Amino acid sequence: MTATILSGSELAKSMRKEIETDVTAFVEQHGFPPTAAIVRVGEDPASISYSNALEKSFGQRGLGFQLHALSGTASQEDIVELVARLNADPSIHGIMVQEPLPQGIDESAIKDALSPDKDVDGVHPVNTGRLAQAAPVGRPPMVAPFFVPATPSGGLEILKQHEVNLEGKHAVVVGRSSIVGKPMALLLLRENASVSLCHSYTSGLPGMCLMADILCAAVGRARMIKGDWIKPGAVVIDFGVNFVDGEMVGDVDFNEAIEVAGMITPVPGGTGPMTNIMLMKNLIGAARRQVE
Amino acid sequence: MTATILSGSELAKSMRKEIETDVTAFVEQHGFPPTAAIVRVGEDPASISYSNALEKSFGQRGLGFQLHALSGTASQEDIVELVARLNADPSIHGIMVQEPLPQGIDESAIKDALSPDKDVDGVHPVNTGRLAQAAPVGRPPMVAPFFVPATPSGGLEILKQHEVNLEGKHAVVVGRSSIVGKPMALLLLRENASVSLCHSYTSGLPGMCLMADILCAAVGRARMIKGDWIKPGAVVIDFGVNFVDGEMVGDVDFNEAIEVAGMITPVPGGTGPMTNIMLMKNLIGAARRQVE
Repeated sequence: MTATILSGSELAKSMRKEIETDVTAFVEQHGFPPTAAIVRVGEDPASISYSNALEKSFGQRGLGFQLHALSGTASQEDIVELVARLNADPSIHGIMVQEPLPQGIDESAIKDALSPDKDVDGVHPVNTGRLAQAAPVGRPPMVAPFFVPATPSGGLEILKQHEVNLEGKHAVVVGRSSIVGKPMALLLLRENASVSLCHSYTSGLPGMCLMADILCAAVGRARMIKGDWIKPGAVVIDFGVNFVDGEMVGDVDFNEAIEVAGMITPVPGGTGPMTNIMLMKNLIGAARRQVE
Repeated sequence: MTATILSGSELAKSMRKEIETDVTAFVEQHGFPPTAAIVRVGEDPASISYSNALEKSFGQRGLGFQLHALSGTASQEDIVELVARLNADPSIHGIMVQEPLPQGIDESAIKDALSPDKDVDGVHPVNTGRLAQAAPVGRPPMVAPFFVPATPSGGLEILKQHEVNLEGKHAVVVGRSSIVGKPMALLLLRENASVSLCHSYTSGLPGMCLMADILCAAVGRARMIKGDWIKPGAVVIDFGVNFVDGEMVGDVDFNEAIEVAGMITPVPGGTGPMTNIMLMKNLIGAARRQVE
């Protein structure tokens, strides 16, 4: 058996069109586009190339983009002050603070400083808390609108677009970061999957993975998950972005997994391209709630 | 084999002494006790008897207690206004809003209105979010101090007091309420357990339970979890409070489970008595942070 490949690139392509339509409609109605402010502190090369890529893709969709680059010597107070100014600026609808921040800066204090309504990255504890408290889909949400980090949102979107049935299925999420693993677990729980969260301390990880109808990998270790850890026919969502000899590979051994899984996202071209899309969707949603 | 009974009543008894010592020291230092305000709306009998019980046990420990009872016709605005007044009152260190609230009141708006610093019940999304974002124990927490709902905190305290090793163990939590199941899962995750969350949609629930080294039941269905769902030697934490023919029983069939499990909390006398204790600990912690 060879798994169906769940192409995030293809899905992202079609969603980009929807986003362009939404942005055009927004601009027609309001005279300005949904606009993001990115805060970058210091000159981390990965951070620079990420903000450059965002600027380009946001610009191509007609979204507004402002880069606020602070020097690496900026204090925590400087960053909080900038964030407060952006919170208060009605022309800014979404704010993202790039990581890494320089040593000595308390990242949680920066997250807390963001207005939850402009936190399109879904990193403010209020947004995390609302996701955790939200009722299962189909029931009243019990919480105010909230933002979910873009990477797990994109993974869920891939599952939904391919009409993967999640209700009552066993989803296993490997990796418990606050930006991918934990929010993905909470999203799958809202879809009425049973959810197991595994991590570096998990004993018998291959056996845990083998139980998964839906297997999500977000550990950051190249090709760690082997073909014989995968239940035949399982759906595999690979959030991994690792580099081996200059080649980008996922957390799943793709060549092995494709022989066992029912569906699998490739790396590159799987969850990666969707992150950007979901971030743009979050920004448009934020702008709508702020101005409409 | 007969399981060791994990008595919450016994543990609560010894912790009450610690709490009294803490309260006495606090009063000596500050001239007033840590003080809670309870907001009750309407005349729900269970709610009345709960606030009466709280008032009695808080009073016995020397803690301050204020009941703010609103009539069942109070509007959402009235409740939010009262909460705002209590937030601003420096003589109040912890605020709890009793459920149920009358129909038509948006519970999430009331939770959002609480000051997170006085939210000793751990229901504000900021507190939920900080718990979800918190790093595993032993690593820097990455978040500001936060409150965890008292019932799951009490369950974890029982596990810790009996030196149950959680690291790398498989914990299965049945039930996904925001007040017990989900926070319990997040607490166990911080202790480096692998955590599976099951609920009404879970297929093959007995099989999922059988995998548990630590099995936590928080579903609210009398004796639902049978002896043959339990792995021999497992540790069972029963959060259930159900009444059958006037008798209080848990979510676990205790008579069957005691023959299989390694350790088990009884109902009554297990997790129940610990809830009160953890609430008092939360209140003392809140008061210290506010005045010290």
